[in-house]
Amino acid sequence: MMILSRIRFILSGYLVLLCIATQSQASVLEDIAKKRGLTASDMRAALMTYTPSGKHDPYLMFASGGHAGSVLVIGLPSMRLIKTIPVFSPDSWQGWGTGSLDSKRILDGGGKALRWGDLHHPALSETNGVYDGQFLFVNDKANARVAVIDLRDFSTKQILQNPLFVNDHGGTFVTPNTEYIIETSQYNVPLGARYAPMTDYKKKYRGVVTFWKFDRAQGKINLSQSFSIELPPYWQDIVDLGKKVSDGYLFINSINTELASPDNMNQKPQLEMAVSRNDMDFLHVIDWKKAEKVAKSAGTQKTAGMKLITLKQAIQEKLLYFIHEPKSPHGVDVSPDGNYIVVSGKLDPHVTVFEFNKLKNAIAQNLVQGKDEYGVPILKFDSVLAAQIEVGLGPLHTQFDKQGYAYTSLFLDSAIAKWSLGEPYHKGNAAWKLLDKVSVHYNIGHLSCVEGDTAEPGEGYCVSLNKWAIDRFPNVGPLLPQNFQLVSTTGSEKMQVLYDMPIPNAEPHYAQIVKAERLKPWSVYPLGMSAETMKPSPVATLAGKERIVRKGNTVDVYMTTIRSHLTPDLINVKKGDLVRIHLSSIERALDATHGFAISRYNINVSLEPGKVETVEFKADQSGVFPYYCTEFCSALHLEMTGYLVVQ
Amino acid sequence: MMILSRIRFILSGYLVLLCIATQSQASVLEDIAKKRGLTASDMRAALMTYTPSGKHDPYLMFASGGHAGSVLVIGLPSMRLIKTIPVFSPDSWQGWGTGSLDSKRILDGGGKALRWGDLHHPALSETNGVYDGQFLFVNDKANARVAVIDLRDFSTKQILQNPLFVNDHGGTFVTPNTEYIIETSQYNVPLGARYAPMTDYKKKYRGVVTFWKFDRAQGKINLSQSFSIELPPYWQDIVDLGKKVSDGYLFINSINTELASPDNMNQKPQLEMAVSRNDMDFLHVIDWKKAEKVAKSAGTQKTAGMKLITLKQAIQEKLLYFIHEPKSPHGVDVSPDGNYIVVSGKLDPHVTVFEFNKLKNAIAQNLVQGKDEYGVPILKFDSVLAAQIEVGLGPLHTQFDKQGYAYTSLFLDSAIAKWSLGEPYHKGNAAWKLLDKVSVHYNIGHLSCVEGDTAEPGEGYCVSLNKWAIDRFPNVGPLLPQNFQLVSTTGSEKMQVLYDMPIPNAEPHYAQIVKAERLKPWSVYPLGMSAETMKPSPVATLAGKERIVRKGNTVDVYMTTIRSHLTPDLINVKKGDLVRIHLSSIERALDATHGFAISRYNINVSLEPGKVETVEFKADQSGVFPYYCTEFCSALHLEMTGYLVVQ
Repeated sequence: MMILSRIRFILSGYLVLLCIATQSQASVLEDIAKKRGLTASDMRAALMTYTPSGKHDPYLMFASGGHAGSVLVIGLPSMRLIKTIPVFSPDSWQGWGTGSLDSKRILDGGGKALRWGDLHHPALSETNGVYDGQFLFVNDKANARVAVIDLRDFSTKQILQNPLFVNDHGGTFVTPNTEYIIETSQYNVPLGARYAPMTDYKKKYRGVVTFWKFDRAQGKINLSQSFSIELPPYWQDIVDLGKKVSDGYLFINSINTELASPDNMNQKPQLEMAVSRNDMDFLHVIDWKKAEKVAKSAGTQKTAGMKLITLKQAIQEKLLYFIHEPKSPHGVDVSPDGNYIVVSGKLDPHVTVFEFNKLKNAIAQNLVQGKDEYGVPILKFDSVLAAQIEVGLGPLHTQFDKQGYAYTSLFLDSAIAKWSLGEPYHKGNAAWKLLDKVSVHYNIGHLSCVEGDTAEPGEGYCVSLNKWAIDRFPNVGPLLPQNFQLVSTTGSEKMQVLYDMPIPNAEPHYAQIVKAERLKPWSVYPLGMSAETMKPSPVATLAGKERIVRKGNTVDVYMTTIRSHLTPDLINVKKGDLVRIHLSSIERALDATHGFAISRYNINVSLEPGKVETVEFKADQSGVFPYYCTEFCSALHLEMTGYLVVQ
Repeated sequence: MMILSRIRFILSGYLVLLCIATQSQASVLEDIAKKRGLTASDMRAALMTYTPSGKHDPYLMFASGGHAGSVLVIGLPSMRLIKTIPVFSPDSWQGWGTGSLDSKRILDGGGKALRWGDLHHPALSETNGVYDGQFLFVNDKANARVAVIDLRDFSTKQILQNPLFVNDHGGTFVTPNTEYIIETSQYNVPLGARYAPMTDYKKKYRGVVTFWKFDRAQGKINLSQSFSIELPPYWQDIVDLGKKVSDGYLFINSINTELASPDNMNQKPQLEMAVSRNDMDFLHVIDWKKAEKVAKSAGTQKTAGMKLITLKQAIQEKLLYFIHEPKSPHGVDVSPDGNYIVVSGKLDPHVTVFEFNKLKNAIAQNLVQGKDEYGVPILKFDSVLAAQIEVGLGPLHTQFDKQGYAYTSLFLDSAIAKWSLGEPYHKGNAAWKLLDKVSVHYNIGHLSCVEGDTAEPGEGYCVSLNKWAIDRFPNVGPLLPQNFQLVSTTGSEKMQVLYDMPIPNAEPHYAQIVKAERLKPWSVYPLGMSAETMKPSPVATLAGKERIVRKGNTVDVYMTTIRSHLTPDLINVKKGDLVRIHLSSIERALDATHGFAISRYNINVSLEPGKVETVEFKADQSGVFPYYCTEFCSALHLEMTGYLVVQ
């Protein structure tokens, strides 16, 4: 088309006009390009990734923050960080865990002493297998915790600790209608985190998969309706849920089917070798809808306060099957139609694809090839295999697009492989073909494509979550950022790296990219809201109702904040008093956020318009302590202050 | 290419070839531009701000993190966050305050209980008034603390609490050769933070300016050689140091010369009104080189452990003068040649410029117009005035470029004003002229231009540190990011907003932009280094020397970390033991960072290549607790684990 239109222009005599028109525009670009040493593809990339001042990104990426304990919200394609959501670790900017009683209650829900987490796999809530933009769930690998984030205000509402194990990696993943949030144990311990010597590893240590029941109306997980299934003490890893044809099924892959345990100071081999001996590990196949029924039956007892289906029960009830999968797998990913289950052993250059219809048939006809040493039946590999495609070294994780293409991250190759699925997406020779590879920089872990793990994927972009940056950015000392690379994946075009985004405040493991239009966040809180309950706060205060109430040694201060003063601006107390300050923002204007800090009392909270927060402390230092607004709010922000006087 | 040769064949001629060449490149751009609705200036902006994959930014911006308690390091012109430096608040990703004994010692240096801060004004170390790239200093407004960051590894080395006051805003600023780091009190309290009722405000509350002595060889502040000067209890604000002709002088502006104190629940007026009554406040002029001599003399006593020059002494010794300045000023900024002192009252539409040569003369000839109520002489306004330029509403802060242009942020106008300095930069009618204004989005506080507060400024870019984003980014809930806007300021061109960068994890107040080439950061630590001392660690361990040493109830573990195992990978202890794990990274490869976490024990540290860290805890929970590498380091990262078994 371009050729023809170009020639038509030329021959029809508009040449000069055209030249002038484009020249005036292009020359600017070329000057800059020359000055900055940009190529045409650089320029293209610049335009592709640039969002003009004030224009909004059409996509949002929710990326885990790893051991920062937070979630990053990034706009696509501009690759700009728009929000951080503190979850397991304090964030003094948002007043998370730094004085707010609400945030303290939520953090303590996951264990009183714990004030950091290793956040791995975010999962957006789904309806019919598609993101519905209501909630985000995350896990804490370090402490086997799960958390619920409400996307009305992008803040954490609940943290729960798993009573059966202490370390997870497979978490969190949701069933297609968010009935359950899935979490699996990884570095296994005895059930209930009890003591047992390492020599008893095979006998007393166990794996577990937990089904956390989510109550959408309450926006909270319901512990009493949650249940778990006991598994062999392999290292259970990533999970995916069946959808459409495979709805009702759950897939977990595993490492260390060797059942290796540590002791490298006493001649035991290094774990990374000991757990990589077998050529094949076990993909776990679980009928979770059947398991749900079993869990509700009288036969299922509680362990450490959680309904637990024993391994024996699971086998007897035919809830659990294994399939051999190439050694040391990472990702297990179900295709949009639910019929293909893609696994990749990171020490095998292939992706291995199982077909659900074959799998169901194999279970129905009991096509098994023996059992593992805990008695779990192993389905015949050939009876469930759809295809194996050689994609390159270190395949980890696969995402999909709307045209039936799959994208697999290759850790050792530092590349992304694009390949085609089989029927109904691609037929005959067009199916199961490696089509393209693009280099990324460097050491890609997961990758994330537009709604690429849902029943209705998008297209256009994938983000390469690279673990190492090495030479990509200026030297800023021995600790380097991670590197997110935006990759264009439109239709049949060759993939192209468009942009590098350094991530220097987190270590994202997994991310999900959602169409921004699916979200309906609040702009401001309704007046007098508690962010913990998302309901009106009992201690909310209105203008003119501010007061200081003393009962014995307890002083309750009902304070309002509005540009540009705090009322009251003077609080006189006695040393030893318990002071509770109930802060109400009575602002209604978008972005009119205040902070509240007290000098030397280790307290800071964030007060978005309409929000209510309570801070509580013992006045154990005598003296004079200014308090003030910490969020620059107006021309008279510096004047928004007051004094706590402790006699 | 086919297009080009085809057309070249049809027609020939230089213009045509040029046209085609341009055309072929521009057409790609135009297609994309059309698709994305970009204008030519959008495209230009895209190219200006885009840094191609792998190309390094020529400038680094160090931006304060506000109540996040951290520093942001941003590359220019790409406006990408390359590093965050935790200072006053914990950062679990970097293991800052989450288990590392070194970081705990440094944090405790600023007060045991304090685990957050409000970081306001970064100051790079200088040699002859120019950034030397060695150190960065920052302050904590909430708790009157200062910190030292070493730019070899971009990490915090020292935190100190001011013994005389509890809240600062004017901090930190350095003398032209970094002899001293300056900190001033803001919301004032009685000297030494003692108790006195609010009714004694005028009599017993005091302002203070502290001169922290910096020992460059040690890379630490030396408390015993530091000193302070007592000031009236106005709210001292921003500071700048004289340079070149004005070297040896210090300028502080102030608010609340009304001496207003709070009590708005008892009919007292709101503070923001009470402290804005006077038309003029006081610019403080201090001869710091003379003060240094006085501080060393026998006559100067210590208060709360700090050498303190009393207000009486300061007046007697002629160390301190006032100059009237327009009400409620924010910035005071000295021109590159040191001769002009620019102040702007945020409730006055002018910038007011004083001239140092006139000021020196006024002091020499004692041209005073009375004294304030504490006896400080006030220099005659007209005798020191150089110019007043009307720039717009809410002028806050001014920066300079190499051509003698000044850039002033206008909070109420949401704009930046560009104006010309007087001789020697601009003469006659060209001097003291408002030249250009550009709108920013929204509510600009400080602005930062390339080395724009030094004796040798650069040119090309300023960054507008906007406090509100409002409509600039997709809605992500009631808490919005700040918005940094990159503005082109080249020569006499009109200023242009090039790029919006959301800041959703901090609230920057001030920033400095330095040429990246001035910094010489380490790529990896020398083997066996303590990051706290930047010297070899006494507990460093080499491969093969790993061991577990029990003495009574204390267990010392000497552990190494290298891809992909931890040695030892099994630690057996008894409940109640004190466990100290001394971790040595024996990696030498750039970017080969490991983390170390223990499940349920609230511990995570970061181990860059060569670094040594110690974690210490009481084994107060019995059971089995995995420990593992938290920083994705290799294909076998998941296998890099071990177990703490507590019997």
